[in-house]
Amino acid sequence: MYTVITLDDILRVLPSLDLLPAIEAAFVAYAEGRAVVPPIGELLFPAVPGDAHIKYGYIDGDDVFVIKVATGFPGNPASGLPSFSGVMLVFRADTGMLESVLLDEGHLTNVRTAVAGAVCAKHLAPPRVERIAVLGTGVQARLQVEAIAPIVGCRTVVVCGRRRTAIDAYAAEMMAKGFSVSTTRDAAEAVRDAQIVVTTTASGVPLLDTDDIVAGTLIIAMGSDTAHKQELSSALVGAVDVYVADSIEQCATRGELRHAIAAGMRTPNSAVALGDVIREPARGRRDARQRIIADLTGVAVQDIAIAKAVSRAVQ
Amino acid sequence: MYTVITLDDILRVLPSLDLLPAIEAAFVAYAEGRAVVPPIGELLFPAVPGDAHIKYGYIDGDDVFVIKVATGFPGNPASGLPSFSGVMLVFRADTGMLESVLLDEGHLTNVRTAVAGAVCAKHLAPPRVERIAVLGTGVQARLQVEAIAPIVGCRTVVVCGRRRTAIDAYAAEMMAKGFSVSTTRDAAEAVRDAQIVVTTTASGVPLLDTDDIVAGTLIIAMGSDTAHKQELSSALVGAVDVYVADSIEQCATRGELRHAIAAGMRTPNSAVALGDVIREPARGRRDARQRIIADLTGVAVQDIAIAKAVSRAVQ
Repeated sequence: MYTVITLDDILRVLPSLDLLPAIEAAFVAYAEGRAVVPPIGELLFPAVPGDAHIKYGYIDGDDVFVIKVATGFPGNPASGLPSFSGVMLVFRADTGMLESVLLDEGHLTNVRTAVAGAVCAKHLAPPRVERIAVLGTGVQARLQVEAIAPIVGCRTVVVCGRRRTAIDAYAAEMMAKGFSVSTTRDAAEAVRDAQIVVTTTASGVPLLDTDDIVAGTLIIAMGSDTAHKQELSSALVGAVDVYVADSIEQCATRGELRHAIAAGMRTPNSAVALGDVIREPARGRRDARQRIIADLTGVAVQDIAIAKAVSRAVQ
Repeated sequence: MYTVITLDDILRVLPSLDLLPAIEAAFVAYAEGRAVVPPIGELLFPAVPGDAHIKYGYIDGDDVFVIKVATGFPGNPASGLPSFSGVMLVFRADTGMLESVLLDEGHLTNVRTAVAGAVCAKHLAPPRVERIAVLGTGVQARLQVEAIAPIVGCRTVVVCGRRRTAIDAYAAEMMAKGFSVSTTRDAAEAVRDAQIVVTTTASGVPLLDTDDIVAGTLIIAMGSDTAHKQELSSALVGAVDVYVADSIEQCATRGELRHAIAAGMRTPNSAVALGDVIREPARGRRDARQRIIADLTGVAVQDIAIAKAVSRAVQ
């Protein structure tokens, strides 16, 4: 019999879950071709505007399959509703019976995205991290920093945003959580002394160029997930020593890689899959001075991993 | 805020709902090109075996969109589980917020399929129906007859199956519901004196040929929904006076029409969409002696219509 799991249930069990190994295993399965993840289903409501996406699939030999619906309606906040929402469904892969409905209202997508950032930090950060720079002041600007900080042992953050009120709210909230936070509205200034840079914006124009990034820096670029978004210049994507993608195929169509390919600055062949870095560390960082980009667009295997972990924790 | 609706809730409200006009309107919207129904999403588990299908979409201007998951695992009954199951999700089309989760366990798919049969009977049956023949003894053999009987005012049924125990169980159950039931294992004999023939099997070879069907008969063929199933000979599909499809496109790839096209017996151009028959009765039956086939493969607009109707009835 199925279990209906509310957001309150989810928030209660999440702190007890060690999601990082589950998400790592999911990326490895994906890189090894053991994941069945059909093309994303899409419904568009151009007049509203809004959209719904359906990500679904399973890992070969696993006992579940997962279907995730995620919605994005940017006009919602004007009427007091969140811009993003969603539901995840976990089914038994041996019987097709519903195991659980995760009424997560989009929260698990936020969490699995942040955990992917932590996976990148674990495998690709330089040896010594003294400052994390974050571009953007939204949900991921918070969650990414919270997920990465314990991995690299750094609680010093510089945040860069456009609106002063949003920057100040971010700083106040993160300082209350024990982070040391400085602020700026200049992206180049924000990243100058950071060893990890996390870009979390919906920008359509590059915010960072080659000269902005010093030796050793890891850039985790998770803002771009459609063809029209771009946070890093194509020259920068071409110039780094190692370019890692959560999904090479997907990043080539909706990540930073897309623009670098179009500009002739990098080819998909020069990209390394995140799962391959986890399997074979030599494919990731080889010395402390390498500049590395990890391009995250979100892959259904992350949804499968987190939905299963939460479902089993609540049972 | 969303509502979680269980199968018990659904069974409680269904008798109060007049689903026929809702399903008719859905077919009309589909025929008029006002429905947005992307290609069906599919997950296959060949080793089990089993499959899951995701049907989703919305009707332009409607205030909801619907995502349905339906699973089929034919080995389940050996372990006491049903072969089919599923879930429907109703979202607001203006905000993307979840309106309700219908934990229908596949039942609403059965109901909307039976209502489509009733729609066909309403618009395409000959004037006088004295006997309904049904091929097959499963869930749809029951639900189709129960849905069609009140439309045409006939409670005399002849059922044709392969296994005697299944036939007897069907007859006992339907007689308890007030039907007069005769039985046979010979399909041609079953349909000889029937004015409506409902085919509900998973047959891979034709069960009925041209000579089996007398003038005036309406055949509702709802068994075939994949490329490999076939209940009617291609000659019969070619010979009838009017061929109606719930979706011409879909029937051409997974309905009876597929085989008739391959055999050169009928072209998609000679097919009439069910929604067009509802809009313009002259495109359906024009005299009492016409032989007509209604080919049903199941269209997402039916799921949208029934999910919305149930969701609103429970709110």
